[in-house]
Amino acid sequence: MNSPLALLATSAESAKLPLEMLTVFGAAKILGEIAEKIKIPAIVGALVAGVIIGPSCFGWISDNDLLHALSELGVMFLLFRVGLEVKASEFLSVGQVALIVAMLGVATPMLLGWVIMVAFGHNSLESVFMGAAMVATSVGITAQVLKDKGLLSHRTANVILAAAVIDDVLGLLILAVVSSMADGGVDIAGLATTTIVSVFFVVITIKFGTPTVNRVLPRLMPKLRAPEAEFGLAMMFLFAMALVAVYSGVAAIIGAFLAGMALAESVSHRVHDLAQGATELLVPFFLGSIGMKLDLRILAQGEVLLVGILILVAAIFSKLLGCGLGAIHMGWKDASRVGAGMVPRGEVGMVVAQIGLAKGVVGQDVYGIAVFMAVLTTAIAPLLLSIAYRGVITQPGAEPLQSDP
Amino acid sequence: MNSPLALLATSAESAKLPLEMLTVFGAAKILGEIAEKIKIPAIVGALVAGVIIGPSCFGWISDNDLLHALSELGVMFLLFRVGLEVKASEFLSVGQVALIVAMLGVATPMLLGWVIMVAFGHNSLESVFMGAAMVATSVGITAQVLKDKGLLSHRTANVILAAAVIDDVLGLLILAVVSSMADGGVDIAGLATTTIVSVFFVVITIKFGTPTVNRVLPRLMPKLRAPEAEFGLAMMFLFAMALVAVYSGVAAIIGAFLAGMALAESVSHRVHDLAQGATELLVPFFLGSIGMKLDLRILAQGEVLLVGILILVAAIFSKLLGCGLGAIHMGWKDASRVGAGMVPRGEVGMVVAQIGLAKGVVGQDVYGIAVFMAVLTTAIAPLLLSIAYRGVITQPGAEPLQSDP
Repeated sequence: MNSPLALLATSAESAKLPLEMLTVFGAAKILGEIAEKIKIPAIVGALVAGVIIGPSCFGWISDNDLLHALSELGVMFLLFRVGLEVKASEFLSVGQVALIVAMLGVATPMLLGWVIMVAFGHNSLESVFMGAAMVATSVGITAQVLKDKGLLSHRTANVILAAAVIDDVLGLLILAVVSSMADGGVDIAGLATTTIVSVFFVVITIKFGTPTVNRVLPRLMPKLRAPEAEFGLAMMFLFAMALVAVYSGVAAIIGAFLAGMALAESVSHRVHDLAQGATELLVPFFLGSIGMKLDLRILAQGEVLLVGILILVAAIFSKLLGCGLGAIHMGWKDASRVGAGMVPRGEVGMVVAQIGLAKGVVGQDVYGIAVFMAVLTTAIAPLLLSIAYRGVITQPGAEPLQSDP
Repeated sequence: MNSPLALLATSAESAKLPLEMLTVFGAAKILGEIAEKIKIPAIVGALVAGVIIGPSCFGWISDNDLLHALSELGVMFLLFRVGLEVKASEFLSVGQVALIVAMLGVATPMLLGWVIMVAFGHNSLESVFMGAAMVATSVGITAQVLKDKGLLSHRTANVILAAAVIDDVLGLLILAVVSSMADGGVDIAGLATTTIVSVFFVVITIKFGTPTVNRVLPRLMPKLRAPEAEFGLAMMFLFAMALVAVYSGVAAIIGAFLAGMALAESVSHRVHDLAQGATELLVPFFLGSIGMKLDLRILAQGEVLLVGILILVAAIFSKLLGCGLGAIHMGWKDASRVGAGMVPRGEVGMVVAQIGLAKGVVGQDVYGIAVFMAVLTTAIAPLLLSIAYRGVITQPGAEPLQSDP
């Protein structure tokens, strides 16, 4: 370090953050733009961007702690932002349909995944893990697509979102079951406790969140003097609810969603705009990091590829049919929309596979297949949604909107 | 892990992110609110929040990689956001005044710091490092105060911001000099290269940034189809400029500021709002993490405390007087405002001391004093600014505004 230019050595460290931000954000936005140009949802472009810059392709960047955190924040903000546009009363009104959609949408992939794995000679426990990895819907992608297309007020949106919340609870319970199966036995009492706590949290928040916030916020706001105090409050509520959700046994994003929904009727438009800013900044990291997780090298072996493709197809159709069946009384068009909305897996599926891997009951190949399935369902879902909502979709620059009954 | 409740072990990891976000963001906001209630700028509360939750006090949280990154992003967004409200032409028009303000504001603290340290028996090199640590203004705090008070259009704001940009270039050059002094000799040629590159980057960006963006953006925008494409472009520009700035030898935040300024005349109000959202989310981490860096234990020894206080006083008055003198032709009121605006040190000062520590030419005590000086000047500056701008300040809930000529 004799030359002042050697200071560029310290600048290499200062460069790391803007470089990572530029690479992930920029790649997601550029590929998103290219995707839109060829009539594919921007979100698919952002996922592909992750694959391209990630270890599967150029390897410019790998999933590190910062990207992981930005990605988690991204999906939290995404769900919070979506929650802000959902009315708790409407959400509750679709509860029964959503319950059936969620339950059929959990049983079908679980069963199909298990059957395929057993048919290919995997042992029962490994097959159960694969089934479990196929269960949990990652609603972030669907929510983003619906938001981008201005479809959050469509009658199917509430069903999808409510079913996704129930699905998350069920998914985490199934994870608890298979996880304790791997350890040798299922603790029924513990399982019951988890169920009760998580259901209690979700139900109480949906039922009493909105009225409580509606009462407290208007009294609190006039007393606050700091700049943008309402947004500050909203953020604290978001983080607090995400935390309580995790401690109650559901995912942080469910807490974020419920926080948004509780605030939906009382916060000002300013909070919507500011939350949107944070969301727009962070979501590309969520999308990019899903793509980055994909490692196509694992699929180089013929049989792994074959099983991978079968599992992928099963993952798509099991949700389409299972969830669609649950919503069939809404008509087959809406049923197919609900089904398509529940297709994306994502983080939770990968977490299940990862736990199996860590416990030594799942092989590297099965883990790779689970990630492949999670990433690909996520990339395919926006396309399915585009098809399912054709005619209802507001494409910027295309026909106006709402031609469907 | 025999009980499903043991899943809470994995939830401990999921809880980490929302917990950290809630702790830092929440503490900054709550203390900020309390501060405003007792007529202290919210920003001081946020700094104190960092001290309270940090190792100096409760030790709930320590500066980790994520907080560091969020903090860096926070100050980058802060400066970007400020840049969006500054016109390059007005900025250039104050160039000469700013140059004098910056140079006097660099020479005075450097000299005073050196004298104090030598007087207390520190060797010449260590004293030079302390002087260098006292040089660089951290304009983020001032920018936030001016923005909060709606004073970014005040005639002194441009002088402060322009002087801070020049100050940053000078500060990094001084860092280069003292750093190579520690290594045994100064490489004049290398230093000249650094100077030319950094000055070139800053001047070119200020001169040609705005007209280039004004020409390119309106042609590009109609072609883009992705949602919130303009914000996406602005973010890519922000990260790219931060990166180029670092490679040119200036701080990332200077690049962020110049990016904002280049976009100021052409981006829509939507970009302002969305950028504001990201800024509001991230800035509390910047403020909190400054406070967290303070470790009061180092000041337990009597002499260290004495020197620390002397250095602190010198740091405040050297900028107040040095920078004020440079702007004295604006009248003593505006001169004192400019001086107060240049008082906060922050990151760069700490970096200088850290490099000295790493090179073994600076002791732990001197490092502690540098951090103490950097944090305290940052906490005091908003109070000085409140006093200096009294009468011009728009306090929410207080008198309207602009009573000063």
